[in-house]
Amino acid sequence: MLRSHTCGELRIEHVNQQVTLCGWVQKVRDKGGMIWIDLRDRYGVTQLIFEEGVSAAAVIEKSRTLGREFVVKATGKVVERVAKNDKMPTGNIEIRISELEVLNPAKLPPFLIEDETDGGDDLRMKYRYLDLRRNTVRKNLELRHRMMQQTRTYMDSQQFIEVETPVLIKSTPEGARDFVVPSRMNPGEFYALPQSPQTFKQLLMVSGFDRYYQIVKCFRDEDLRADRQPEFTQIDCEMSFITQEDILNMFEGLVRHLFRQVKGIELTDFPRMTYADAMKYYGNDKPDTRFDMRFVELNEVAKGKDFAIFNDAELIVGICAKGCAEYTRKQLDELTEFVKRPQLGAKGLVYVKYNADGTLKSSVDKFYSEADLKQWAERLQAQPGDLLLILSGEANKTRKALSELRLELGERLGYRDKSKFSTLWVVDFPLLEWDEDAQRWFAMHHPFTSPKPEDIHLLESDPGKVRANAYDMVINGVEVGGGSIRIFNRELQALMFKQLGFTDEEARKQFGFLMEAFEYGAPPHGGIAFGFDRLCSLFGGADSIRDFIAFPKNNSGRDVMIDTPSTISDAQLEELNVRVHLSKK
Amino acid sequence: MLRSHTCGELRIEHVNQQVTLCGWVQKVRDKGGMIWIDLRDRYGVTQLIFEEGVSAAAVIEKSRTLGREFVVKATGKVVERVAKNDKMPTGNIEIRISELEVLNPAKLPPFLIEDETDGGDDLRMKYRYLDLRRNTVRKNLELRHRMMQQTRTYMDSQQFIEVETPVLIKSTPEGARDFVVPSRMNPGEFYALPQSPQTFKQLLMVSGFDRYYQIVKCFRDEDLRADRQPEFTQIDCEMSFITQEDILNMFEGLVRHLFRQVKGIELTDFPRMTYADAMKYYGNDKPDTRFDMRFVELNEVAKGKDFAIFNDAELIVGICAKGCAEYTRKQLDELTEFVKRPQLGAKGLVYVKYNADGTLKSSVDKFYSEADLKQWAERLQAQPGDLLLILSGEANKTRKALSELRLELGERLGYRDKSKFSTLWVVDFPLLEWDEDAQRWFAMHHPFTSPKPEDIHLLESDPGKVRANAYDMVINGVEVGGGSIRIFNRELQALMFKQLGFTDEEARKQFGFLMEAFEYGAPPHGGIAFGFDRLCSLFGGADSIRDFIAFPKNNSGRDVMIDTPSTISDAQLEELNVRVHLSKK
Repeated sequence: MLRSHTCGELRIEHVNQQVTLCGWVQKVRDKGGMIWIDLRDRYGVTQLIFEEGVSAAAVIEKSRTLGREFVVKATGKVVERVAKNDKMPTGNIEIRISELEVLNPAKLPPFLIEDETDGGDDLRMKYRYLDLRRNTVRKNLELRHRMMQQTRTYMDSQQFIEVETPVLIKSTPEGARDFVVPSRMNPGEFYALPQSPQTFKQLLMVSGFDRYYQIVKCFRDEDLRADRQPEFTQIDCEMSFITQEDILNMFEGLVRHLFRQVKGIELTDFPRMTYADAMKYYGNDKPDTRFDMRFVELNEVAKGKDFAIFNDAELIVGICAKGCAEYTRKQLDELTEFVKRPQLGAKGLVYVKYNADGTLKSSVDKFYSEADLKQWAERLQAQPGDLLLILSGEANKTRKALSELRLELGERLGYRDKSKFSTLWVVDFPLLEWDEDAQRWFAMHHPFTSPKPEDIHLLESDPGKVRANAYDMVINGVEVGGGSIRIFNRELQALMFKQLGFTDEEARKQFGFLMEAFEYGAPPHGGIAFGFDRLCSLFGGADSIRDFIAFPKNNSGRDVMIDTPSTISDAQLEELNVRVHLSKK
Repeated sequence: MLRSHTCGELRIEHVNQQVTLCGWVQKVRDKGGMIWIDLRDRYGVTQLIFEEGVSAAAVIEKSRTLGREFVVKATGKVVERVAKNDKMPTGNIEIRISELEVLNPAKLPPFLIEDETDGGDDLRMKYRYLDLRRNTVRKNLELRHRMMQQTRTYMDSQQFIEVETPVLIKSTPEGARDFVVPSRMNPGEFYALPQSPQTFKQLLMVSGFDRYYQIVKCFRDEDLRADRQPEFTQIDCEMSFITQEDILNMFEGLVRHLFRQVKGIELTDFPRMTYADAMKYYGNDKPDTRFDMRFVELNEVAKGKDFAIFNDAELIVGICAKGCAEYTRKQLDELTEFVKRPQLGAKGLVYVKYNADGTLKSSVDKFYSEADLKQWAERLQAQPGDLLLILSGEANKTRKALSELRLELGERLGYRDKSKFSTLWVVDFPLLEWDEDAQRWFAMHHPFTSPKPEDIHLLESDPGKVRANAYDMVINGVEVGGGSIRIFNRELQALMFKQLGFTDEEARKQFGFLMEAFEYGAPPHGGIAFGFDRLCSLFGGADSIRDFIAFPKNNSGRDVMIDTPSTISDAQLEELNVRVHLSKK
């Protein structure tokens, strides 16, 4: 090694040792004949010192040529610092340098390599390799590394086998858009990149692998947002001879293990909630349960007066904001504007202030007596000092708007602390959802999800009523994982495809291999997949997954650092038997 | 869980326990009112027993409906076997079944699910999920799993960080053919799948990650052979602030660790050999060193007689086959035919039998005296009883043919025992090789490989003489890994591209981001990549990598199980702005 130690390991007990460090120049101070240099590597920062009259003149001279981010090799003696720095692990010592070599000079970086940088998003994406030098970004990737290692430790301890499934697979019309890859050896034909290893992991169960996992790249050609990337990583798992309960326990175990090992947090509760209750009490299938503020339906007590808006509404539903009775007109207006935004589309927001003195004041005093309001307050378990916020209208839309309002209030009230974690299983999802545009049923999870045995008889008569053996894991309102018990019977799988509008021919062409496999002895099985990027960003206390991915793409799917995608040569295209044909749009 | 135990865990101490097992019916024997069933899962096989008059009639009846590969759940009491089977870990017990449930029936599999199967390659590829049920194939994947886990254990212990690099990257003309992916969001542009994460791991070094590794899928669109797949897995590694010596030691350590942990083998020697010596002594840059049989050049002693073939030859070179003096005419003819095959193209093979009685007999007795032959024998350190085999002609071609002959003899003589392992580092590769067709230099490893500092001055004047800081790890004649110290200086990298025939513009367009990165403080760095599939097959004692990959593709790049590649819809193509255009060929 070019170095004897890293920049993070020297301590007071190393004093008087001759050492060699390599690293990047973080900072240079040159004052009164003394030069101090902070030398940085992945492991830490160590202070180098050069003193006129003590260090050789040539070394002093060379030290004065150094700029930020120069790569150097420096040899010298560890000495105790006069002015110690308690904030640095190496703060008790410094190195009195006798030899200095510039391994590589550096141009001035386009932004500061500091925890707080002056670089904008675009610049930092273009020079990602410099952004990755910053402690904050590097620590995110170190966290990701630990998450991977600890995931594998747990899965190994539970006898899961890691199996790599193929990346060049088959395009299927169900689900999101596929990325495709033209095959040179099979002219006119294409591979697709996997959106998940779903069918392969099921085949591994048919093969008797019993417990499979993989931390695996998956791909979706969808329009991008801050928390979506064209390529993303899943913790992908499958088990045989299990019930839903076994899977919930196994993967509750994984998440408990990760919190314990990576964050030193011992999770207490891991409650379960049906999809129906999640929608009823939070208007959301991934409720943020760091705070309560449950929905209370008020149809029974709020209808029948002269307030037409409520009388005409399918649903009247409210939440109680603790201690917010003193919200100002301006604050209430902000909340009203919030729910009236086009994406939520509420017509208005009714409030009731339960004042500290026990009186009640509302935006609908014209229609309701104080006794009426009191009744609402009781239903909402409000105390003097609280604020009731009530929405009404078409049920689904109203729940959605109130859910957003609840989250907004949670944010304003500081309930959504990123260092607190609240976990939840949401279970009993509907198997199918109706798509009004396509005029057909779609699988809410995917077509391989098993209906609950007791609901199978409804599959043809009342598909919307069928519940699935499907489950999502939700942490702090983020869906971090989801899975299901799978169909393992050919006839049921065929019926499922029929309900999804596949012809027999289409089902056979796309998934014939899987249905055939079910005829050769398929065990009962089920599994789950965790969105690993999202799980890491959650553990890291961040909203975006981007800073937990070494080389992310921007919202146009571009890597601006390496400048891809890019054009390729005509010769290459010809060999692949494709031509570019820009559509008229 | 549907089961209380696996099929591999019950022992004599479980006798009298009530247990439930799940698994596949391996075998049914029905004889004299007794029915025995071997029930199989990943963990082992357990014998179930049903006895007329003892077991309930309904259970007996159901047991008689079972066929091979039925999936069942069986409950009963563990009893001691009368006739114990020492070959099975569960052979001391059997389960007297009281309840039996068929979880899924099975059609008769198209081939036997046994260690020795009757299924041909094509059939086993089509029903890969059934082939994977066979012990032999499953054990290969279990070996692969252990190799992955132990690789990570070692890399973690050496402070390497696992970082995922992107799969959707940029197509580059250097190297093998890329698989490409049309970008919907960037019409007319394409991503490429990585042939290796080379540039990204170098950028991670520029970022200061210091030690990186990844077990990662890579892709090459090349024509396929038994040991090549379009997608393959690498152990990919890079380190900063190191010399070549540090890398050799670090990864010698990895391979020692794997042999110790996975195979219980303590490697002794780990010799190093220059490329020049490997070519001189073995005619091969990946010599199989399980046996010696080194080349000995005979120009000095074999020229100058009346044998024109030798006199005209650039090189006369021989090997000594120990104890083969008694080879028959037929055996010698076979060896002669072997070297005369078109792919080797030797004109003939000269032999010298050093008989047990000390006399010498050769195919060139007409031209050489026994004293001449004795001199050859001495050079080749032959003993009475040995056979000398000698080729001559153009040096490179002759070495290649003799190398193949050496391997063939090694095979015939049983020197190539798959349970013995001989490791080797080959070092000091040439930096460049001349391509006669393209009339230009190509990088022997890749364009980022550093020339040896002492040879840099030859880079423009005599490029073929420049040696690289490059190294391959060879085990049993298989190149399992290779790497190099990298260029980390912009000017040297630019010069390298120039020598490879890139214009400035081309170099900037393809690799500008890397050259620019070198200007912002790039540390000295180097790395290595291991072919993980090949390493696994070597550890498993197999020649082909295919049975160490869960879902391999055939020689046409097809997965015949899922039937991919396949055509995609016009709508999908249009959205991607490409059209299929079959070339006239």
